[in-house]
Amino acid sequence: MAPMGEFELIDRFFNRPARRAAMGVGDDCALLQPQPGMQLAVSCDMLVEGRHFLSTVAPERLGHKALAVNLSDLAACGAEPLAFVLALSLPRADEAFLAPFAAGLFALADEHGIELVGGDTTAGPLNVCITVFGQLPAGQALLRSGARPGHDIWVSGRLGDARLALEVFRGHATLPGSAFEEVRRAMERPTPRLALGLALRGVATSAIDLSDGLVGDLGHVMRQSGVGATIELDALPRSAVLETQSQALQRVCLLAGGDDYELLFTAPPSRRDAVLSAASAARVAVTRCGTVEAGDELRVVDADGRLVEPGHGFDHFAS
Amino acid sequence: MAPMGEFELIDRFFNRPARRAAMGVGDDCALLQPQPGMQLAVSCDMLVEGRHFLSTVAPERLGHKALAVNLSDLAACGAEPLAFVLALSLPRADEAFLAPFAAGLFALADEHGIELVGGDTTAGPLNVCITVFGQLPAGQALLRSGARPGHDIWVSGRLGDARLALEVFRGHATLPGSAFEEVRRAMERPTPRLALGLALRGVATSAIDLSDGLVGDLGHVMRQSGVGATIELDALPRSAVLETQSQALQRVCLLAGGDDYELLFTAPPSRRDAVLSAASAARVAVTRCGTVEAGDELRVVDADGRLVEPGHGFDHFAS
Repeated sequence: MAPMGEFELIDRFFNRPARRAAMGVGDDCALLQPQPGMQLAVSCDMLVEGRHFLSTVAPERLGHKALAVNLSDLAACGAEPLAFVLALSLPRADEAFLAPFAAGLFALADEHGIELVGGDTTAGPLNVCITVFGQLPAGQALLRSGARPGHDIWVSGRLGDARLALEVFRGHATLPGSAFEEVRRAMERPTPRLALGLALRGVATSAIDLSDGLVGDLGHVMRQSGVGATIELDALPRSAVLETQSQALQRVCLLAGGDDYELLFTAPPSRRDAVLSAASAARVAVTRCGTVEAGDELRVVDADGRLVEPGHGFDHFAS
Repeated sequence: MAPMGEFELIDRFFNRPARRAAMGVGDDCALLQPQPGMQLAVSCDMLVEGRHFLSTVAPERLGHKALAVNLSDLAACGAEPLAFVLALSLPRADEAFLAPFAAGLFALADEHGIELVGGDTTAGPLNVCITVFGQLPAGQALLRSGARPGHDIWVSGRLGDARLALEVFRGHATLPGSAFEEVRRAMERPTPRLALGLALRGVATSAIDLSDGLVGDLGHVMRQSGVGATIELDALPRSAVLETQSQALQRVCLLAGGDDYELLFTAPPSRRDAVLSAASAARVAVTRCGTVEAGDELRVVDADGRLVEPGHGFDHFAS
């Protein structure tokens, strides 16, 4: 739909020539041509102010994050990114917002060699909805359903910083300026683990990206694989900043953090070297933090193997 | 992101088994496998309350319309629909809304044999964003850029009823109950012209769907084809209800209506029989209503060939 100078907006900020797509922005549809034998991987994430980002976020970071969280889903499937479409609802066509938003968006797109092939802009409450397209050889997608008892559980990067930043914004925690900037960056400018996802094809038996928090997202893998799991709380990788916080808050941030956009994946113990090689090739740290179990329970244990009650400390920080 | 029972919601209303997609709802990505030699057509439309639908719309009709406006873009490319993803932002998880919304959405999806393969739900201001996928043989898409001077301009169905309904809602027009219901249905429950789009492959030289109004949408074809056009105002197909209205209001509804979701397309005069055969096969009326011209101007003329000022009468009804 038209008003608010939609077409001018598209032209100014979002109309870049298609290089790989058969047809990009500017017709009724974009046209994509997957390579022969390739499946198309598709994912869609919608970001709403106050829920997925705060009104204080810099537009450049919002542009980055809106695409990053979608690319993270491709990473979790082991897909190579190709293109995306953007639907944007904006209170008003505001260059001070759109120019840096587009800059952040396209910087990340260019980093991965992908292009914007279409979308929609409209007036309305701020809402950013991106659908991403990737490709992968038929049958090679990393799914949530392949975890088997005895497999190792791994995570990439570090967990919990994004949640810690949110707790600072909420007034539940305080941090010195530089530490706050570090965790705020984790929240506002996540890095999708695309190279790791690609490198894990044929190595990992299941994978998911951590967007809702480890306990919740591991729960999806458990349900879809028909398995339980044990997580070693003390093994979960965390930043020096998070380590300065109370045990209760660390636990919340690590187990129920949300917005980590790291990969959680499983692999047989026999493939530990292969996992480490994949991580090394992808230049990202990976940490073994648990084991897939028979049954359907999630147990979180401390360094001495004692059961940690995952519910403890959650209520105060419930989102 | 989780809260508001997102996963329960998805399961209850939106999780139906994938039949054609390699992987549907429930993993990080959906997986699609276009047939060999086929291009994938992709389009994305976002619907915002107060701009694309009124708060008074029945949820069943909103579910229908959200998918219909997207399918209309596939129709305008001559693509066969395959699948879609849905991102939904909702003030609250409300069964009284979601059950009929899903019913309207899936009734239209089933009519065209397509499936929901993924998406996102979140709490936030009501916003419905759908991305649709279709396929068509490489190189056969109907584009906006193929109109040439001398080609006929055609439209499908009837124009202007949706805008007339909007003017009634705005208090700028009045209609008896049954007439209002008829035009309200045109606004709230449009019919995507998919069969016509398919039948026009190899016949039409350009096509676009009318979502923003004839003058605006024809303008896209003109710009992308590098042509002008003459439209015969009196030839534009309209309902008996619209004919009861003032000439000024008819003109606004026909030329700047918006929300018609009919196809506007061009074809050489030598293909008139082929156009009529395509329309007959698709069981939809088509009307020849103008001519593609050299230059870059749009002229709207009356039955006597006199220039009608397209601007006249627009201001009062400006959206």
